[in-house]
Amino acid sequence: MAEEAKKLSGYAAVDNHVQNHQVVGVGSGSTIMYAVDRLAERVRQEKLNIVCVPTSFQARQLILQHGLTLSDLDRHPELDVAIDGADEVDAALTLIKGGGKDSATLGQQWKKGVPIEVIPMAYVPVSRTIAKRFGGEAVLRMAVSKAGPVVTDNSNFILDWKFEHAHNWKEVNTAIKMIPGVVETGLFVGMAERVYFGMEDGSVRVRDPPVN
Amino acid sequence: MAEEAKKLSGYAAVDNHVQNHQVVGVGSGSTIMYAVDRLAERVRQEKLNIVCVPTSFQARQLILQHGLTLSDLDRHPELDVAIDGADEVDAALTLIKGGGKDSATLGQQWKKGVPIEVIPMAYVPVSRTIAKRFGGEAVLRMAVSKAGPVVTDNSNFILDWKFEHAHNWKEVNTAIKMIPGVVETGLFVGMAERVYFGMEDGSVRVRDPPVN
Repeated sequence: MAEEAKKLSGYAAVDNHVQNHQVVGVGSGSTIMYAVDRLAERVRQEKLNIVCVPTSFQARQLILQHGLTLSDLDRHPELDVAIDGADEVDAALTLIKGGGKDSATLGQQWKKGVPIEVIPMAYVPVSRTIAKRFGGEAVLRMAVSKAGPVVTDNSNFILDWKFEHAHNWKEVNTAIKMIPGVVETGLFVGMAERVYFGMEDGSVRVRDPPVN
Repeated sequence: MAEEAKKLSGYAAVDNHVQNHQVVGVGSGSTIMYAVDRLAERVRQEKLNIVCVPTSFQARQLILQHGLTLSDLDRHPELDVAIDGADEVDAALTLIKGGGKDSATLGQQWKKGVPIEVIPMAYVPVSRTIAKRFGGEAVLRMAVSKAGPVVTDNSNFILDWKFEHAHNWKEVNTAIKMIPGVVETGLFVGMAERVYFGMEDGSVRVRDPPVN
């Protein structure tokens, strides 16, 4: 996604959902940087009283760098709103998150697959179980700036599951999370309330969950 | 449980399930120490060719101390048999594991509850979600030989969920694992194939899963 499109969507999320006196969850990724820029701008201009709860080390640093009020899930276990970027979004607002790289165009990231955070000692059996039960392959994500695998903020490994076709994501997500050794998946099923897409023409498109 | 009863059950599990040329999963706890004693004895006496895969640091040390062949889930992702102790067992062979302490008599451990391994930053919201949805309370397990909480071999925290009544454990286990931040639970539903109980009179009782 072009930087301008990321900026558009990050700004739109903050402008439409953040209000005074809220606890705001701040996610990770390249789009969230723009959202935090805008959040800091609004807090300054509108003198908002906002508390920010990060989901990652990156988010924590962004909050501190922008002089926003840092909290955590111990002190603020309930968020009023949570803003995050996503690699992919389908019509049902199922998200894939955690790809770890920018996708130049929407659609490219699916090839990378669904990230699955696993306890290090279990990565081989989890990978085999996923391939056997759901097809495709689940590959250990390797680091770029160190030898060996990527280690997450929680000291775990990541498998990128390159699936072969669309699945019933709710079912598959539950089944994958139940495999011993799986910590989290990058599938967000039924969690997003609204998605903003920055478009190349400078507009922002909104997608809401389908009405059941 | 008396030490003699633990020894009886640990020995029975090894004697009835371990055969030559197997990959044996070795769990954790006080009963497993007797199982590994017996395993080492049989390997020596019967010249068995056995590979052991530990599930924890404790298991790994036991395997090494007994001179058994140590492997891991990378090299041996599929186990022929896995032996583990449990804190509690119901009629359907649902197990509670991971209480971390010996229970003097069977039944006492239920009061301690179901251990739930969580990512440190999420322990408060996970605890609140469990209490709200399933009742009881989920309390951070504190360490005895250091200040602060118990930290697991995987660098996580443990909540002990003191539930108020029996649940549909399969459903509750899935629901708890789907809460963001939950890594594993101490509930083993539909996993045990046979349970051995060491009795006070020196006999061993066997319990199999109910036939559906």
